[in-house]
Amino acid sequence: MLRNRLIDGVRRIKPILCGGQSLRSLANGATSKLTTIEVDDRSGIATLSMNLPPVNTLTMELMHDLIDSINQIESNKSRGLILTSSNDKVFSAGLDLNEMLNPDVERLRLFWTRFQDLWLALHLCGLPTAAAINGHSPAAGCVLATACEYRVMLPNLFIGIHATRFSFVISKWMMNSYQSVLPRRIVERALNQGKLFASQEALDVGLVDEIACSKEEALSKCAAFIATFDKTNPVARCLTKRMCREPDVRELLQDRAADLKECVDYVTTPLFQEGLCAHLEGLKKRK
Amino acid sequence: MLRNRLIDGVRRIKPILCGGQSLRSLANGATSKLTTIEVDDRSGIATLSMNLPPVNTLTMELMHDLIDSINQIESNKSRGLILTSSNDKVFSAGLDLNEMLNPDVERLRLFWTRFQDLWLALHLCGLPTAAAINGHSPAAGCVLATACEYRVMLPNLFIGIHATRFSFVISKWMMNSYQSVLPRRIVERALNQGKLFASQEALDVGLVDEIACSKEEALSKCAAFIATFDKTNPVARCLTKRMCREPDVRELLQDRAADLKECVDYVTTPLFQEGLCAHLEGLKKRK
Amino acid sequence: MLRNRLIDGVRRIKPILCGGQSLRSLANGATSKLTTIEVDDRSGIATLSMNLPPVNTLTMELMHDLIDSINQIESNKSRGLILTSSNDKVFSAGLDLNEMLNPDVERLRLFWTRFQDLWLALHLCGLPTAAAINGHSPAAGCVLATACEYRVMLPNLFIGIHATRFSFVISKWMMNSYQSVLPRRIVERALNQGKLFASQEALDVGLVDEIACSKEEALSKCAAFIATFDKTNPVARCLTKRMCREPDVRELLQDRAADLKECVDYVTTPLFQEGLCAHLEGLKKRK
Repeated sequence: MLRNRLIDGVRRIKPILCGGQSLRSLANGATSKLTTIEVDDRSGIATLSMNLPPVNTLTMELMHDLIDSINQIESNKSRGLILTSSNDKVFSAGLDLNEMLNPDVERLRLFWTRFQDLWLALHLCGLPTAAAINGHSPAAGCVLATACEYRVMLPNLFIGIHATRFSFVISKWMMNSYQSVLPRRIVERALNQGKLFASQEALDVGLVDEIACSKEEALSKCAAFIATFDKTNPVARCLTKRMCREPDVRELLQDRAADLKECVDYVTTPLFQEGLCAHLEGLKKRK
Repeated sequence: MLRNRLIDGVRRIKPILCGGQSLRSLANGATSKLTTIEVDDRSGIATLSMNLPPVNTLTMELMHDLIDSINQIESNKSRGLILTSSNDKVFSAGLDLNEMLNPDVERLRLFWTRFQDLWLALHLCGLPTAAAINGHSPAAGCVLATACEYRVMLPNLFIGIHATRFSFVISKWMMNSYQSVLPRRIVERALNQGKLFASQEALDVGLVDEIACSKEEALSKCAAFIATFDKTNPVARCLTKRMCREPDVRELLQDRAADLKECVDYVTTPLFQEGLCAHLEGLKKRK
Repeated sequence: MLRNRLIDGVRRIKPILCGGQSLRSLANGATSKLTTIEVDDRSGIATLSMNLPPVNTLTMELMHDLIDSINQIESNKSRGLILTSSNDKVFSAGLDLNEMLNPDVERLRLFWTRFQDLWLALHLCGLPTAAAINGHSPAAGCVLATACEYRVMLPNLFIGIHATRFSFVISKWMMNSYQSVLPRRIVERALNQGKLFASQEALDVGLVDEIACSKEEALSKCAAFIATFDKTNPVARCLTKRMCREPDVRELLQDRAADLKECVDYVTTPLFQEGLCAHLEGLKKRK
């Protein structure tokens, strides 16, 4: 009953994702505060841009607006979704680390749950998805990219999950997202090293699928990828995608509270707080 | 107790496979109606040919004869099994889709169980197995090829699981069969796209192991692969193969009824029936 | 609670590993009988050499000293561990097969448990680990190499798990160790064939990461790999490594007795005893 369970799963996920959130009703082409949706009338493809200066840090608000936009694009039955940034230098700098510094535990729980919601919304999105990575994409920026089905990147950028460099230990589902794209040996080594791949390196290992010279070319390559599904039945495609991705999300869906507790327990250790403090000071000095 | 469990598993599988079927007793070199077995006296390798014109559609009868032949070859302690087609254009066109169009549910249950049996018989076959793919190999034709341990293909053919193109959602064990050969990222994308790989593409991603210029050369390369096991102990080899493949079959063996119910539930949806109808009409027009 | 469970896991493993063994207290640079530890004062990296002539067969005693040395290096907070051989021709010839020939069952149980302990100690070692493979590395020699995070090999050697050639069926955790490094398709085929990869072949499939011209160069490349972790937090790195490796060890840790029973049951079959006998006689003739 996998196919039935998948359909049930979808039903079950939606209330989790939207529970308690007031979803603003947005027409196509409208903008929420921190994201923009543009639908190409000819292709039917929706381009979702992160639009929070200076570096698209995944704050509570940006994550809310992203979830909202993904749900909207999905329910509008667009032909596909391209995730990109309106910022030319950074795709997304990753999670708002200030939420993890001396956190209020209740707020931290909301923050981490929001991040789980965002990953689930993108990883299980029924539409074809692609990322036009037009800026650096470290940490959770990379996790968002790997949750898409295709990645096109501009040259001379970096992408990767460098959590061990700021003392963070990622969740298993973030590892799963990496392993859905890269071979096991490469994933373990890259996670342990906190490796940031340059664009060409990312292409060589398969972390990205193509390099494009401009954002326009990247968007066009993403659209070409989405067009490869034209001859498929959309419902059969969606169920097949979810069957492939079900092992990645199973543990998280079965016990979201466990992942949450584990995150809170670790973030509140002195070990992590000291490591994060040093990392944030290092970032300030660089500016 | 994995090794013991594996041996038990083998015992357990056999009655399932053969239960209720009257197995015709066939001498080496004899033919059942729809398959042919030829054993090379020098090499001891059995070549099993599918022989149902025009395109080796996997009908109830062809699947019965294939299971029968695989069991016979295995119990005769041949040195290896090569699966091929007596048709020069098509290896196998896949399942008989007419069994899925407005099906009688009881008949559909028998049909799907037969397909499960066939995959289990080939995927868990104790002998070294190889496929000489001398014709197109779409859908279940590809699943049979991936259940073998080695694949040699002729040029200018296509192979792949294009189920999403006729609205079908494959079972998880068919996905496992694909993933036993291809990397996860490639499997998900190919399944979602319903991709058919040209021979050279199939070689490049590892879906086939070699390209051969003629059927004779393909058979010869398959025989050379089977000869790579000459220095191994056959029982240790068989138990090792089954240990590697146990994760692929575990879920199916634990609950065959669930997979069956899921298939029947999906095939009888209007969504699938409409998609299949359109697909079959498209095929007719092409003729 | 994965991260907490991992930390608990570490606590749980240690008593298992050390239980009942009298650990000799060794200063840095000191030698136990069969292994040598050299710590580079500048780099802080410990080089652990197997030193049991003629071919570093993994006897009960060598395995004891290896576990002891790994634990010592880990508790001394060295910067990393390089495993190598003081023998220029053989890294390790693998398990002492004489322990498996007409074995006393109690002794066999101790022997296999020791091997489980050794693999767990190396596979879960919190430090960065690398193998400088300066000699042939068949069977359990290969398993030790794959338990490390990086492998540098000298030319014109062979490495691989050739168990099916002497009628042995490896445990699932040994297969997991192989699969943590190589793609699934390659693992199954290599295990079934009992394949020994030449150095260059091993590099091509990813079983080793680099080829070096001399032992000195191999050690230096291993040290360079260990230096890639310099910017990471050691605790976060260790927890991340264990998260990646947890699926490999889960089944073994949950039921070590089952793996032990399975090994004893198989080793004491006439099938294996006859195969081993023939193999050992073949080795004698070659000398």
